[in-house]
Amino acid sequence: MKINSNYLKLKDSYLFSLIAKKVDEFRNQHPQKDIIRLGIGDVTLPLVPAVVDAMHRAVSEMGNAETFKGYGEEQGYAFLRQAVCNYYAKKGIMIDIDEVFISDGAKSDLGNILDIFDTDNKVIIPDPVYPVYVDTNIMAGREIIFINGNVHNNFLPLPDESLDGDIVYICSPNNPTGAVYTREQLKIWVDWALERQAVILFDSAYEAFIQDNNLPTSIYQIPGAKSCAIEFCSLSKTAGFTGTRCGYTVVPFELERSNASLNKLWLRRQTTKFNGVPYIVQRGAEAVFTETGLKQIKDNIDYYIDNAGIIADTLTELGIWFTGGRNSPYIWLKCPNNMSSWEFFDFLLYNCKIVGTPGIGFGNKGEGFFRLTAFGKRQNVTEAMVRIRQTKF
Amino acid sequence: MKINSNYLKLKDSYLFSLIAKKVDEFRNQHPQKDIIRLGIGDVTLPLVPAVVDAMHRAVSEMGNAETFKGYGEEQGYAFLRQAVCNYYAKKGIMIDIDEVFISDGAKSDLGNILDIFDTDNKVIIPDPVYPVYVDTNIMAGREIIFINGNVHNNFLPLPDESLDGDIVYICSPNNPTGAVYTREQLKIWVDWALERQAVILFDSAYEAFIQDNNLPTSIYQIPGAKSCAIEFCSLSKTAGFTGTRCGYTVVPFELERSNASLNKLWLRRQTTKFNGVPYIVQRGAEAVFTETGLKQIKDNIDYYIDNAGIIADTLTELGIWFTGGRNSPYIWLKCPNNMSSWEFFDFLLYNCKIVGTPGIGFGNKGEGFFRLTAFGKRQNVTEAMVRIRQTKF
Repeated sequence: MKINSNYLKLKDSYLFSLIAKKVDEFRNQHPQKDIIRLGIGDVTLPLVPAVVDAMHRAVSEMGNAETFKGYGEEQGYAFLRQAVCNYYAKKGIMIDIDEVFISDGAKSDLGNILDIFDTDNKVIIPDPVYPVYVDTNIMAGREIIFINGNVHNNFLPLPDESLDGDIVYICSPNNPTGAVYTREQLKIWVDWALERQAVILFDSAYEAFIQDNNLPTSIYQIPGAKSCAIEFCSLSKTAGFTGTRCGYTVVPFELERSNASLNKLWLRRQTTKFNGVPYIVQRGAEAVFTETGLKQIKDNIDYYIDNAGIIADTLTELGIWFTGGRNSPYIWLKCPNNMSSWEFFDFLLYNCKIVGTPGIGFGNKGEGFFRLTAFGKRQNVTEAMVRIRQTKF
Repeated sequence: MKINSNYLKLKDSYLFSLIAKKVDEFRNQHPQKDIIRLGIGDVTLPLVPAVVDAMHRAVSEMGNAETFKGYGEEQGYAFLRQAVCNYYAKKGIMIDIDEVFISDGAKSDLGNILDIFDTDNKVIIPDPVYPVYVDTNIMAGREIIFINGNVHNNFLPLPDESLDGDIVYICSPNNPTGAVYTREQLKIWVDWALERQAVILFDSAYEAFIQDNNLPTSIYQIPGAKSCAIEFCSLSKTAGFTGTRCGYTVVPFELERSNASLNKLWLRRQTTKFNGVPYIVQRGAEAVFTETGLKQIKDNIDYYIDNAGIIADTLTELGIWFTGGRNSPYIWLKCPNNMSSWEFFDFLLYNCKIVGTPGIGFGNKGEGFFRLTAFGKRQNVTEAMVRIRQTKF
């Protein structure tokens, strides 16, 4: 019996436990101080009424023999997949219902998609980035090539001719940097992938936060992308589904590699190793895409985006370099005075009683940077900015 | 870019599409005939009131800022893991809350658990069996050794000294055969695994159907099992959760291989590639384990078991050999007159207007056998047995 020894190569992440430890220490020393958390990566506003109503109806259906639902199709009910198609159609993108796969969230699909690819593909991953991309590939023993985000490329790395790889992760709007690729930049990636028959795994979990109509909210807005990209979307941040669990992944029919349809491979993976999302949750997700639902979730997104704007305005005023904050709930700032990520964490905690997330937690190239998030309460965000303005950096 | 070429080795299953085609043909020829489906592998009774009430409350909580829940622990809320521990305690089995992992169902976990094992382990799989065991191992390119179920071993194969392998699947009560291992038989498997440091993947999805108090409902009722077995449970058939999606997997702390804790490896897999089960569903699952919930689901299980008993009694009376039907919702019968699985399918459809499932669909050793299920309506089961009694085999 041999275990998968690749698991032993994973680094334990002490990021959030170290944050908790430091906050506890501070609190023991200063029990009277009000700490404001701007590190939170989870939504705080409740589910919108359209979703709550739909789920109440679905729960009642499940308790009635006439309307009870047993197994559904693993890839999701047609009513929800059609709703996703309609949502794409509004962006000018036509996709077929069988190109849509409903899942319990982008995190699951981003990890599980690797099952359909050979382990000896070379994988390109931006640094800094959402740690799941790295860990899931270490687990499979794949070779990873990092491409660096930095101040010069605004944390939006692009390929050059020499870049070689089979699979590339792109997250836009990015977690943790909040940076968003333009159409022109995404076209460079698509052309690069088409030329090499590489596959782009496009993490679009934050697309609903994009305010600027010129920015792409789907990779399929770029010509040729259907032949080289899989897109992962989520209702977690869009509609407050972090605890309700529903996402969707698009695998276009055009996407073929080694003479095989990736759509069919993924269908086979999902029908074999997954049993679908709860009917109740799918009805809640369907409600998100109704006219009423879209209006209600927009109010919540606007609330978070306004929070982000308040943070961004303050940093601009103080002359602190940052990305994100306009089309994303994340603000990624350069630590003032060349402080390291953890030095700035301590500085902010002890001088402003604000907790954020050290950039080094998202990769080596995150050193010297820091993530703030817009998911908090308005009055806390405002108060935090007052404290930051009063601080001498 | 290389795809996972193991996927190309998977056989497409035409079982259920071929059944549908044959039923359609029959219906076109005999539009007036009432067909009774005894092939259905899905529950038909609705969720019990305790579960429906709990989920309504949880939906309301999700719509209120004060009680809203975002991300939960990937391995499940403590309230549900504790409820599972209490359920085990009633069986005389003490497990720790951190040995319990809540999931979206046994199918997902049975597939995903393979991630923590090296691909060059030898896997032992009974034939006939639930097809997921075979397909998930083909996907990973593992060597599979089949052990045969047959009339002589009552479809409960046991290891002999010569049997060599690293991972073995045991499903008891079995799908599709309905056969249940005794304590003495499971002890043979546990001793075999302990001696070789093999790991047993024990699929216990149908444990709640066991009526005979002498039969084990968990592998952990066998001494030593915590050092060699992972147990997969599900609320799908137990509580009608096939469309609600919740299961749980137990990975004991004692279970170590290659100096690594399988509990820690699985925790790492789940925290990296999974984001937990919906809060609403976990509250529904918690309600299953309350006194009221357990009483309500028992009524439903009794209904299915009584259906199974009606079928079993008829087959006994007719002298048809079968397993299952007493401690399981499945009845696995030997096709009369040495008919093949598909010959008997046609015979039953055209003579009795009954649809079942050909045994060959569950593996080569299922040829000549046939599965009936007890998930239908009582009056249909009774009417089906009248038709079978009137038929000359």
